[in-house]
Amino acid sequence: MHATTPTTVADILSALGGQFACGSTGLAAAEIAIDRIAGLESAPAGSISFITRAQFVQHLPSCQASCLIVGEKLAAEPALQGLARIITPDAYYYYAQLTQWWKKRHASTGAAASHIHPSAVVHPAAHIHPSAQIGPLCVVEANAQIGAGSRLASRVTVGYDCEIGEDCLLHAGVVIGADGFGFAQHAGAWEKIEQLGRVLIGNAIEIGANTCIDRGALGDTIIADGVKLDNLVQIGHNVHIGAHSAMAGCVGVAGSAHIGAGCTVGGGAVVLGHLSLADGVHISASSTVTRSIRQPGLYSGVFPLDENANWEKNAVTLKQLHALRERLRNLEKQLKST
Amino acid sequence: MHATTPTTVADILSALGGQFACGSTGLAAAEIAIDRIAGLESAPAGSISFITRAQFVQHLPSCQASCLIVGEKLAAEPALQGLARIITPDAYYYYAQLTQWWKKRHASTGAAASHIHPSAVVHPAAHIHPSAQIGPLCVVEANAQIGAGSRLASRVTVGYDCEIGEDCLLHAGVVIGADGFGFAQHAGAWEKIEQLGRVLIGNAIEIGANTCIDRGALGDTIIADGVKLDNLVQIGHNVHIGAHSAMAGCVGVAGSAHIGAGCTVGGGAVVLGHLSLADGVHISASSTVTRSIRQPGLYSGVFPLDENANWEKNAVTLKQLHALRERLRNLEKQLKST
Amino acid sequence: MHATTPTTVADILSALGGQFACGSTGLAAAEIAIDRIAGLESAPAGSISFITRAQFVQHLPSCQASCLIVGEKLAAEPALQGLARIITPDAYYYYAQLTQWWKKRHASTGAAASHIHPSAVVHPAAHIHPSAQIGPLCVVEANAQIGAGSRLASRVTVGYDCEIGEDCLLHAGVVIGADGFGFAQHAGAWEKIEQLGRVLIGNAIEIGANTCIDRGALGDTIIADGVKLDNLVQIGHNVHIGAHSAMAGCVGVAGSAHIGAGCTVGGGAVVLGHLSLADGVHISASSTVTRSIRQPGLYSGVFPLDENANWEKNAVTLKQLHALRERLRNLEKQLKST
Repeated sequence: MHATTPTTVADILSALGGQFACGSTGLAAAEIAIDRIAGLESAPAGSISFITRAQFVQHLPSCQASCLIVGEKLAAEPALQGLARIITPDAYYYYAQLTQWWKKRHASTGAAASHIHPSAVVHPAAHIHPSAQIGPLCVVEANAQIGAGSRLASRVTVGYDCEIGEDCLLHAGVVIGADGFGFAQHAGAWEKIEQLGRVLIGNAIEIGANTCIDRGALGDTIIADGVKLDNLVQIGHNVHIGAHSAMAGCVGVAGSAHIGAGCTVGGGAVVLGHLSLADGVHISASSTVTRSIRQPGLYSGVFPLDENANWEKNAVTLKQLHALRERLRNLEKQLKST
Repeated sequence: MHATTPTTVADILSALGGQFACGSTGLAAAEIAIDRIAGLESAPAGSISFITRAQFVQHLPSCQASCLIVGEKLAAEPALQGLARIITPDAYYYYAQLTQWWKKRHASTGAAASHIHPSAVVHPAAHIHPSAQIGPLCVVEANAQIGAGSRLASRVTVGYDCEIGEDCLLHAGVVIGADGFGFAQHAGAWEKIEQLGRVLIGNAIEIGANTCIDRGALGDTIIADGVKLDNLVQIGHNVHIGAHSAMAGCVGVAGSAHIGAGCTVGGGAVVLGHLSLADGVHISASSTVTRSIRQPGLYSGVFPLDENANWEKNAVTLKQLHALRERLRNLEKQLKST
Repeated sequence: MHATTPTTVADILSALGGQFACGSTGLAAAEIAIDRIAGLESAPAGSISFITRAQFVQHLPSCQASCLIVGEKLAAEPALQGLARIITPDAYYYYAQLTQWWKKRHASTGAAASHIHPSAVVHPAAHIHPSAQIGPLCVVEANAQIGAGSRLASRVTVGYDCEIGEDCLLHAGVVIGADGFGFAQHAGAWEKIEQLGRVLIGNAIEIGANTCIDRGALGDTIIADGVKLDNLVQIGHNVHIGAHSAMAGCVGVAGSAHIGAGCTVGGGAVVLGHLSLADGVHISASSTVTRSIRQPGLYSGVFPLDENANWEKNAVTLKQLHALRERLRNLEKQLKST
């Protein structure tokens, strides 16, 4: 993304702080023009980049960046001394802030910033904060609330009675407040249990494209402040997700699961219903959580990938694993008795 | 969800039947006001709740419900005798019916009940039953049929020639009748196989948010009466799903699979293509069905979750499992020969 | 799908080539009317079908097709000699072409072919080729480009600055260019990393319903020519997918993964972030790719499905697999020393 107005390192320092250190060119911050942010390995001349670990020094030979964001821990790194750089406590956090500042500065190409796009269908009894943005072709149903500074990108549905807090970002195709999956079996068929609860979404939450969060059956589905959900995530009815937890793409959380605060769930993982995960639980991608987890830590359960022929042999043998253990026990007994 | 008009237990009995039994307060059914339905554990005063198993009696101390729905099997349960209660053959089924009655009674906050929302794009050659409801920003293409009493919530697409039966509910973002995934490999590229079939959806079917059902290649994709699909489910071309089968969120069913009647598929499970599942087959969440299943029953295949360090050790060893079996065999032989 | 104008085998030959061979009826190609394309097993009279493998000869007894497409390798097959047939180098490829010709010929029931549907929301600064089609309720944001002959079916979002090449087909609900999932952890919360890159989609690409492709963080997400993605696929930021690779439904590819050319990924599989897959790598359905793959070939990693009781025994034992190996080692040592 190219800048349309010239930006200098001095502009960045003045907006975001940090300490400037001259490179071997001797240019001052105001003399260094920046036209893009770039990754370290492929940063062209005119870009600003960042380095977060000592081991990435190996990428410097291919880096042509005009300025580098450097964390305090790496400030003394010899390989960096010849480069123009911004020294800051946490280089990655500075980079995150820089992307935000950069996007605002070059906002002309971004999505339009109208309050409620004329193509959106907003129920007269919905409550949209004047600073909220409802994008094209969104649907906001009766009594739904959209808080200050929140944005529905495009083609988002927020169901009746559901609440979105402040400073949230819902990407295209999100569905908040569809019915939870609730039925009573009766006479060989499924009798609908109407879902009478709501979805309550806190503040500073981001929800990825085509992700779905169902309304509660009787109580509410609750997403606490700062939660980040990636695309195509499914959150069942009456789920609680604790503050600042994050879930990658294609995760499924079944009904009434309680996820603690500060948890992460890797892509494609599944959390079964009615389970509890403590604060600080981390689930590896593709794993399935089949019981509650009371201790923080990293948990995994994925069949290792292998060449198909090997996998087939091992998978077949796996179906005899319990029997193999019995055979091993018998051998152990035999050997003891000899 | 609070009621806006006062409801009494007598109103519920008169609508849904059941036998009333006085609690220790001695209040008659018409004297007990109900302002919400609530779960047993957290039911406040003024609510009606339900109990489906004897073991849930342990939750009674925290239950303040003004009336309890009780199945006949639990009618003699001593702990319940002091409570106002409705006795009925199947408490959970009664509860399901109650949610339906309750929602209708308090419909003012629900989605609008217009026939075809003015923002929907309905092809002039589509056939929409006068009692069907097409929600905001839906697309119904040429020759599609929507049966009596069926409802497309919002932002639903029903493709050309596809048919939706009676009393169906399609949640937001559903896509019926996109092309199946069919290509012929030719000269290193994929040649499109146009998908000339339809999707035929029976009666009393519910389809969750952002779920996709593809049209058949030559024949049709068929969903039989009473099927319930949760959110973000993928149904490939030419799949048949038998009556009253249910699938939880994030399930994928590949092309030409035949699922029997009365089956259930747990969340995140995958059914490969061209397989058959007998009636009454139940697949656990996250399992992958790689061969046809001829016998009803419960089938599973999920790597057990473990602390990451343990998982890593076991996963590495798993890649040698077949070799371990050979080593075990050798030991057995050696021991026999000694 | 029934034809509305009479078609003969002669029409097909004249459009698609191939060599006609009379069946035992002696009818000429112009005398054989065709009203549908059908699968071999259930082809009715009046249909044209195709046979791709010698083993499918077993389905001939139930096949009533009026004409059969036959590959050159099967031309001498005795069982086919009495049938009217079209002989062609590759029967499946001929069938693919036939479906395309057939669909065009009977296009009246297809989706409308307007340039930009009046209900679509297209930013004035978007670039839509005059031969592109933008379906109902699509959103095309600022500076997005849609190439010649490409079609957005309905309810598709293409984000700002993203580019779609020529002859692409994006099915309903697709989201191109939502933000990648990028955050920096800071003080117990997640700080947004604005996603400044684009999605660049080449030519002749098909993208299934409700599939999402995120924009790059700094660089771009790149989908090369001829790629085919099924429904509900998630492609993370900065992913590269090589030419003519194909992915089935519910696949998730995490950020910065590089997939080679000519790869296939089975339904529900997951590819972790920052990995590389060589050209010609094939991943089985439901498998998880946790490391880069340098050699072409077929790779798998799926827990085998079993009756639940068996699965439970084996899954429990699996958590002791490493310990079992140690016990086996000990036995081996003991036996050696005896």
